[in-house]
Amino acid sequence: MSIRIGIFGYGNLGRGVEAAIRQNPDMELAAVFTRRAPETVKLRTEGVPVLHADDITSMTQKIDVMILCGGSATDLPVQTPALSKLFNVVDSFDTHAKIPEHFAAVDSAAKEGGKVALISAGWDPGMFSLNRAYAEAVLPNGSAYTFWGKGVSQGHSDAIRRIEGVIDAKQYTIPSDAALEAVRSGVCPQLSTRQKHTRECFVVAEEGADKAKIEREIVTMPNYFADYDTTVHFISLEELKRDHSGIPHGGFVIRSGKTGFDLENTHVIEYSLKLDSNPEFTSSVIVAYARAVARFSKEAKSGALTVLDVPPAYLSPKSGEELRKELL
Amino acid sequence: MSIRIGIFGYGNLGRGVEAAIRQNPDMELAAVFTRRAPETVKLRTEGVPVLHADDITSMTQKIDVMILCGGSATDLPVQTPALSKLFNVVDSFDTHAKIPEHFAAVDSAAKEGGKVALISAGWDPGMFSLNRAYAEAVLPNGSAYTFWGKGVSQGHSDAIRRIEGVIDAKQYTIPSDAALEAVRSGVCPQLSTRQKHTRECFVVAEEGADKAKIEREIVTMPNYFADYDTTVHFISLEELKRDHSGIPHGGFVIRSGKTGFDLENTHVIEYSLKLDSNPEFTSSVIVAYARAVARFSKEAKSGALTVLDVPPAYLSPKSGEELRKELL
Repeated sequence: MSIRIGIFGYGNLGRGVEAAIRQNPDMELAAVFTRRAPETVKLRTEGVPVLHADDITSMTQKIDVMILCGGSATDLPVQTPALSKLFNVVDSFDTHAKIPEHFAAVDSAAKEGGKVALISAGWDPGMFSLNRAYAEAVLPNGSAYTFWGKGVSQGHSDAIRRIEGVIDAKQYTIPSDAALEAVRSGVCPQLSTRQKHTRECFVVAEEGADKAKIEREIVTMPNYFADYDTTVHFISLEELKRDHSGIPHGGFVIRSGKTGFDLENTHVIEYSLKLDSNPEFTSSVIVAYARAVARFSKEAKSGALTVLDVPPAYLSPKSGEELRKELL
Repeated sequence: MSIRIGIFGYGNLGRGVEAAIRQNPDMELAAVFTRRAPETVKLRTEGVPVLHADDITSMTQKIDVMILCGGSATDLPVQTPALSKLFNVVDSFDTHAKIPEHFAAVDSAAKEGGKVALISAGWDPGMFSLNRAYAEAVLPNGSAYTFWGKGVSQGHSDAIRRIEGVIDAKQYTIPSDAALEAVRSGVCPQLSTRQKHTRECFVVAEEGADKAKIEREIVTMPNYFADYDTTVHFISLEELKRDHSGIPHGGFVIRSGKTGFDLENTHVIEYSLKLDSNPEFTSSVIVAYARAVARFSKEAKSGALTVLDVPPAYLSPKSGEELRKELL
């Protein structure tokens, strides 16, 4: 029997989940839930109902895993605990500093409901976390580095858009080649924030706006840009739409460490992602973890989990025999 | 209480395990077992007994996990099933085609003994297998490629040494840059054996040997060299010792895949290793999995496992709370 998936929230991430389900023949999309008027939401999959978020309790017997596609700032801290009392769930909560608190809230709700809730699936947190954990366990005497990009940072793009005189903007985070090479050489360098990444901004300004002032406001903005070398390009709205409408991202997790009695040997482990679409890749990770959640639920487990708690085999539709034969 | 480790077989791998244990404060080396005369084996760790392989039954209560450091050709197919009746074990069995059969033999023995046996730990099989499995689960619509090197292939070096007139030899497997770039571009190329890797041989010939004949025998050797572009360099024994005494290795697992309703987006996942010492890195992986085996054993599990069955968190000495806070 197929794993019946529900999607809660139909934005970029929800649409990515919808597309990802089509690549997994052991899954089917059972329903999409929205806080908008359901009749205004048009799915790309035929024959799947769109229901209002308030009608969710009617579907508890028809959904094996609910995938929560809201944002980490205000949606998921409320939705994941609430829904994990009723459904097995997966979310992509990505506010790193608040993960312990989110985990605790979801764990207690999921245990109350006898459900399995996997939080923080995606690529960071997610695939990058796995790689940080594996590499640290294998090379305890070493240092790990995470680099992000080249990719679009939604938060930084939004921050630029809030500046007076700005119509639209896109910000790219770019890892420094020199820093990457230093880390790959195995020397374990000390790197400042400024040395690790640069930021590049493409800005559409209103006609007659003071571009010098906008640029100054961007590059000196605390937390967002002040600690980085930032380049600002002013372009037309047409250029922005033509050249910067994608949502690419990616990054690197690199750990180098020493082994041997006299620590005479150096090893470098590198994991990298180059993604055309940040939300679609995140969705693909989430969907694989939905399979793991369905399996844990069949084993009568309950409570919160993260990617670090899941055996890799649980992500695959293949049997243990097939995996050992084909992939080991 | 520390995890008490036994080492069975004290060659390159056994010495690597001995060194790796020192980097893991929750472990201690309890004993080393050898088929040689124990008094001829000198450990680098003080105060640890060296016992004869025949005396192993006297130590069943003093060892939590036995690490088997023999070879895959003849040692492990016999030793892992035999010892997994008495001990929790980890091995690094790496004959890919025979893994299903080895797994079955070890599984039945370990279940008989109520022990946990993790087979095929290392980097391939091992870390590379994990990455093949994760990437396939996340990007089911795609293709995966494994490249090895640059590194020393022991089997190929041995094959050259068996040629008449050869004193010593070292063979490097080298991934083709062009093939790597094609795969990284996301086009999913069809690659022949010859296109993926080249082989470079450093050979010390006897004085007066027919070098042209040796070279011909190498490059035409079926299975080992005939399907590759192979370069042969004749060097002196001094040069071989000076420039080629290390055991470096490494490689790449790259998967690219498509997402989106119209498969319009391409993603590339790349995992790579650059290792100064192949046996020491393998040992480091094995030791991390020994920790997982000790945990499974405490949970009263028994039977055979592979890296695909182990939650990443089980490899770490850190608690779930620490992992979520520091690494997720």
